[in-house]
Amino acid sequence: MSRGVTSVITLLTDYGLEDGYVAACHGVIAGIAPESRIIDVGHLIPAGDIRRGAAILAQTLPYLPVGVHLAVVDPALGGTRRGVVIESHGRIFIGPDNGVLSWAVQAAGGTEGAYEITNQDLFLSDVSPTFHGRDVFAPVAAHLATGRRPSDVGPPLPADRLISLPAPTCRVRDGAVEGEVLSVDRHGNVQLSITAKEIEGLGARVGEMLTVWLGRRQVMIPYRETFSAVPPDDLVAFADSAGLVALAINTGDASERLGLPPGAHVRLCPGR
Amino acid sequence: MSRGVTSVITLLTDYGLEDGYVAACHGVIAGIAPESRIIDVGHLIPAGDIRRGAAILAQTLPYLPVGVHLAVVDPALGGTRRGVVIESHGRIFIGPDNGVLSWAVQAAGGTEGAYEITNQDLFLSDVSPTFHGRDVFAPVAAHLATGRRPSDVGPPLPADRLISLPAPTCRVRDGAVEGEVLSVDRHGNVQLSITAKEIEGLGARVGEMLTVWLGRRQVMIPYRETFSAVPPDDLVAFADSAGLVALAINTGDASERLGLPPGAHVRLCPGR
Amino acid sequence: MSRGVTSVITLLTDYGLEDGYVAACHGVIAGIAPESRIIDVGHLIPAGDIRRGAAILAQTLPYLPVGVHLAVVDPALGGTRRGVVIESHGRIFIGPDNGVLSWAVQAAGGTEGAYEITNQDLFLSDVSPTFHGRDVFAPVAAHLATGRRPSDVGPPLPADRLISLPAPTCRVRDGAVEGEVLSVDRHGNVQLSITAKEIEGLGARVGEMLTVWLGRRQVMIPYRETFSAVPPDDLVAFADSAGLVALAINTGDASERLGLPPGAHVRLCPGR
Repeated sequence: MSRGVTSVITLLTDYGLEDGYVAACHGVIAGIAPESRIIDVGHLIPAGDIRRGAAILAQTLPYLPVGVHLAVVDPALGGTRRGVVIESHGRIFIGPDNGVLSWAVQAAGGTEGAYEITNQDLFLSDVSPTFHGRDVFAPVAAHLATGRRPSDVGPPLPADRLISLPAPTCRVRDGAVEGEVLSVDRHGNVQLSITAKEIEGLGARVGEMLTVWLGRRQVMIPYRETFSAVPPDDLVAFADSAGLVALAINTGDASERLGLPPGAHVRLCPGR
Repeated sequence: MSRGVTSVITLLTDYGLEDGYVAACHGVIAGIAPESRIIDVGHLIPAGDIRRGAAILAQTLPYLPVGVHLAVVDPALGGTRRGVVIESHGRIFIGPDNGVLSWAVQAAGGTEGAYEITNQDLFLSDVSPTFHGRDVFAPVAAHLATGRRPSDVGPPLPADRLISLPAPTCRVRDGAVEGEVLSVDRHGNVQLSITAKEIEGLGARVGEMLTVWLGRRQVMIPYRETFSAVPPDDLVAFADSAGLVALAINTGDASERLGLPPGAHVRLCPGR
Repeated sequence: MSRGVTSVITLLTDYGLEDGYVAACHGVIAGIAPESRIIDVGHLIPAGDIRRGAAILAQTLPYLPVGVHLAVVDPALGGTRRGVVIESHGRIFIGPDNGVLSWAVQAAGGTEGAYEITNQDLFLSDVSPTFHGRDVFAPVAAHLATGRRPSDVGPPLPADRLISLPAPTCRVRDGAVEGEVLSVDRHGNVQLSITAKEIEGLGARVGEMLTVWLGRRQVMIPYRETFSAVPPDDLVAFADSAGLVALAINTGDASERLGLPPGAHVRLCPGR
């Protein structure tokens, strides 16, 4: 397989950066696929938070070169879940079959082929039951990057047997869109599961106001092109870099001010 | 352009490491300039802290290979500020024109040419108003690393129209040097805007004492070659790795003990 | 020296990620050894914690390609300690001679040759007394990666004059194993200095119980293959990815619940 096609390996985990876990995965990959380029998608996913890992991978994917995309967020590690390799439009996804890959595979265009990882020839010689990232997923990903075929990892799996995360709630009812907080970034910007397209389909226009219900409270928030369009400390709604509606405070923390943690329900409609 | 000259791209942002933002920039660069080497100068600049970003880039620059140096600390993103490319003695700087590049350009020897970034052919096809790092700066930096010329990004800008940060205060008055806290590192070491040269010009000698005024308080601190020259828990002043006077506690947190956050005013003179 | 042998440089420090210190080291290395691949073992070692640095390097080492392994955790920087280069079975270790390398060298098979770093031709031209990582260790490591011989760095040192950390306590007495908490990871998993082999030598079997003494308290903890073998919020003991006994809570923080910080003493025996 030629360089520049699958010689990029991207890596997302919940291992954190305080231990040597990420380095061990890098080392295993560098040993098997010394010419590969590793891109760290991120390692600070909250421990076991499959949903957050899935969201970050799916939103980053359009900007990552075609390659082998490894994600290990694995609260049941060593348990009953299997490992999978999924092909999708030239990309190869690898990780535990617990949904962490599902939104990214969907973003890539859906499953074209899937395989259960069983071929121990591709693993490290000793497999720790608690560190499949290092002993199973990293070496298999590296072998895939050097040209091994996805079908080499094990038997095929029907796409409909793969575990998928439920799509974040988002529905139109009574002229409003109901959704939830998908994620909160380090600036305190609140990303909703509601796309800009949906609220604009209901008539919302940049420059006008949105009505936002947070539980029983109701807040009027200006809908603008970006958050610097309002004065410092003011609330603003805008279409974020993933095309989703975000609530922010120019130079402030909207999640804290509005009391909106990930998962909280939100309802929006255009105007007053 | 030959490898080893501008195939290094350095990256400094305030994006943090918890989201996929840095990875998206890496991915965009790897797609356009697959042979480039990316060096992360740092992504934990406090959100919007242009001054801190400028200081870290300027102090790290002498140790970075000649290359394309991208810095994105951009509190007014999507606002009225323009993006710029600045040439300086073989180095190419790129970022928002808000001062974040100014101290590094000065450290590199000053502006030789500057251009406003307007050439959309070098951008990603869709530009989010909130993520110019990914959609504008990263692809333009990557194109520059593959040999596009700075003048290809847009029209020239007179150097005197570029936004510069004011130099940190530092002046000699009545036999003492007045300055401010430039930064505090994770060990709690306090870096002043005062160079070792200045206090030594006033007669300070390694091995002797300094008088330090912190507001109304006055403290005597030994001036030594390095902080391990004093017993654990003792205060010490020394010339740090950037040639600036630092106040530290051997194995302790000087910023906390002295009550010196970034920006605080400090006055120093040799001896008692 | 051929690529793929010593063109990998691994880097472990306590510099943190908030400043430009790690980037300066990367930059120095990229300037001298532009073809090298840098693997960051980690930079979040608590400041000056030689023992934690030594443990992480030793446990990660088996998964790192043969290369130049640089570790800088250096509370006495600029003090009296010397810098050393140690050869061990094809690997080259470099860092301060304060024990931070000792467990890794032991894991690699022991010292085959050692040299004091004195050859200033291999340093940066200006050496800051407070930043040997950037000015001494990084350039020497890069020169070693490009084929300079360890004996080029300075005079040989007898292996028995190198500083070694004492091995973590671990002894069998009265049918129980006594050890200590070696490290706590970000999930709150407690890693003991006791190997799974030792407790299994005393008769412990996966599927049965362990008696654990924590000071005066005594707790019964199931010994399982991995932590997901118990229900959420339950305590469990298992052999971790380094072959050491770990105490964990499935989706919880065992260090907090059990009151076990690094260094705390623990005594284990099989069954009740």
